[in-house]
Amino acid sequence: MDFFNVVTVEEGRQMLLDHFKDFQLETEWVHILDSVDRTLAEDIVSTIDVPDFDRSTVDGYGIVVEDSHGATEAIPSILDIRGEIRMGELSDIKISSGQTVYIPTGAMVPKGATGVIMIENTEKMGEDSLLLYKPVSKGENIVYAGDDIKKGSPALEKGRIINAEVVGTLAALGIPQVTVYKMPRFYIISTGDEIIDIDEEMAPGKIRDINSYALQVMAEKAGGKVVHRSIIKDNYELLREEVKKALEIADIVLISGGSSVGTRDYTDKVIKSFEGKGVLAHGLSIKPGKPTIIGDCEGKMVIGLPGHPVSSIVVFKALIEDYLDKKLGNKRIQPYVTATMDYNFPSSPGRETYQMVTLRKEGGEYFASPTHGKSGMISLLSQSQGYMIFKSHEEGVNKGEKREIFLF
Amino acid sequence: MDFFNVVTVEEGRQMLLDHFKDFQLETEWVHILDSVDRTLAEDIVSTIDVPDFDRSTVDGYGIVVEDSHGATEAIPSILDIRGEIRMGELSDIKISSGQTVYIPTGAMVPKGATGVIMIENTEKMGEDSLLLYKPVSKGENIVYAGDDIKKGSPALEKGRIINAEVVGTLAALGIPQVTVYKMPRFYIISTGDEIIDIDEEMAPGKIRDINSYALQVMAEKAGGKVVHRSIIKDNYELLREEVKKALEIADIVLISGGSSVGTRDYTDKVIKSFEGKGVLAHGLSIKPGKPTIIGDCEGKMVIGLPGHPVSSIVVFKALIEDYLDKKLGNKRIQPYVTATMDYNFPSSPGRETYQMVTLRKEGGEYFASPTHGKSGMISLLSQSQGYMIFKSHEEGVNKGEKREIFLF
Repeated sequence: MDFFNVVTVEEGRQMLLDHFKDFQLETEWVHILDSVDRTLAEDIVSTIDVPDFDRSTVDGYGIVVEDSHGATEAIPSILDIRGEIRMGELSDIKISSGQTVYIPTGAMVPKGATGVIMIENTEKMGEDSLLLYKPVSKGENIVYAGDDIKKGSPALEKGRIINAEVVGTLAALGIPQVTVYKMPRFYIISTGDEIIDIDEEMAPGKIRDINSYALQVMAEKAGGKVVHRSIIKDNYELLREEVKKALEIADIVLISGGSSVGTRDYTDKVIKSFEGKGVLAHGLSIKPGKPTIIGDCEGKMVIGLPGHPVSSIVVFKALIEDYLDKKLGNKRIQPYVTATMDYNFPSSPGRETYQMVTLRKEGGEYFASPTHGKSGMISLLSQSQGYMIFKSHEEGVNKGEKREIFLF
Repeated sequence: MDFFNVVTVEEGRQMLLDHFKDFQLETEWVHILDSVDRTLAEDIVSTIDVPDFDRSTVDGYGIVVEDSHGATEAIPSILDIRGEIRMGELSDIKISSGQTVYIPTGAMVPKGATGVIMIENTEKMGEDSLLLYKPVSKGENIVYAGDDIKKGSPALEKGRIINAEVVGTLAALGIPQVTVYKMPRFYIISTGDEIIDIDEEMAPGKIRDINSYALQVMAEKAGGKVVHRSIIKDNYELLREEVKKALEIADIVLISGGSSVGTRDYTDKVIKSFEGKGVLAHGLSIKPGKPTIIGDCEGKMVIGLPGHPVSSIVVFKALIEDYLDKKLGNKRIQPYVTATMDYNFPSSPGRETYQMVTLRKEGGEYFASPTHGKSGMISLLSQSQGYMIFKSHEEGVNKGEKREIFLF
């Protein structure tokens, strides 16, 4: 039996960052509408002033603000109406004291105007005269050129995950294509003599491959691209051959093992048989997910994940999502809801524990119960809406306490 | 001026559900790996027992549990080893009292065995004898056939949003394809004489189309499909022609208006010019987003959204996401983080207020500040990570209070 080099979750994360620090993500140039959920790989600096002209924020009249000073409902100021600015058009109207022009919301403020009075605070007297009922201060109801985003100023930071708000900003800046990180390539291997694929005929003693499907979805969600999935028997030569293929076309290799000691041994031996630093850690102090192997084959990350679906999902979240987020420089905010515990939940002191939970909502508040099920059960997945994390020093929580439940 | 039928957000939501209750989403049949983020349109009932055989959850030995009763480190029980069960294979071994077989994790428990003792609690004596050091209770370390999911029992509910956990469950059940809702088709029209598209040359007084881009991303995220986007001048005939085209190929038409009164009038008139119930509401008591129009043209939903990007995004979230979620039967949990207010935030009593916020993290906790910017500024979008909602009766929050910040 090998010396088991068990590491904590924090050590495992640091190990990935240290050992694979030379792994550089490539970038690609995509249309903004194809960039959603990807990560921006460049700082976006505005090449224009936004807006690029002085804009009215209301429907109203452009004035020299001093003309409005002292105006009230009882004693309005009176100005000459000199026309109208049309939306989306450059106007050469220039006003001076005693004059005004109509400006719709979003239209250009004419030269000479130092404020805009809302239409609600005015009244037309005939066609050519306007009564002002309120004073207007300098700059009121005007967004000056560059007030929103100045030419040459940073608008969006590298590492930003692209969503509707970012796409809207890029559209405003007239940027139809952006540089995003190219997704790391994953090769996912499910091992085990008992594993059959979804379209194979069921036979006694067999179970269907779950992990390669769940891991593919997770890898894609985390910004990765799955180049291949395969199912391999518990056989050293077959597994080695498959990892060799994987190292040729992928950046990260995931081997989700059977849960038996024998299977884990094959993964360990195969990792050691390649050039590279071999097995960096064999065992992670996490629950579930202890039988995790962190390996380096030819400089590439090869992770042996537990065979139980919940365990492999937990380890993927704890280690690989974290690595990718840091590598991409993502400023991702892990969403959660705060829930009151419906039961006492014990933890496993000494191991960071991921407890699957079922949420219910009552009176606008969330309540959480532990999802029941033995290790390896898929109903743990189908019945849970999220999970809570116990730090390794914690012993659990009591009924009635409030905790953060992270959502899948 | 028209009578403005202003409704509350709640009334607006109910109006959509009531008036468009006959709108039926179609469904389609897709591979589970293409189903991610879609909504399940069928209840999934298991056609198999999971597992479909009695499975060991540990590496150990199958025994008749009575043989272990009274066993201790000092006085172990002794059994005859009758072989080994191999992973993924049907075994015809049957044991009786005094006998045992080796079973790896995940393998089939042999006939006659009523419990499995973990290998750690045993010791081999020669090749054929096994010492047991601990008693085992009935069923210990066994998952019986159907324990996880019983044949004929519900496994996943209609309305579930498909994620890695759901795909894993479907894989376990041997279900490669599922019925999901077909995405409603959106037609998005940006109106305004000042609006130019992202690839057009900039000119004085013009601004770039932001809304159709941001709305496309939001519609797609909410489960919709955008069949067309267009920019239309402020002209009754042109807008009517475009809405006519839209009604032929889309389920939902969004007209994001310029912000001026004139533009809103065109949308109102165009909606009224078609068969159908016309304008159901003109004005929503929400901030930002008041100039919203809810319309029914030929029985289809036509929504006039405000021209300001933040306003149109807010109204999309408040009304259309809510409608789609309810229509899809989504059990979506809106993710948020709880943040402490860095400032006093005023609200706008009488209107449900969506306040854009900037988040910072310090010592593991989130702090929120209001994102500054005048109405219509795009920096409100680029600088915010989320938003908080004030109910219409609220007057604001104070510095130091904790509130839920919903994430984009």
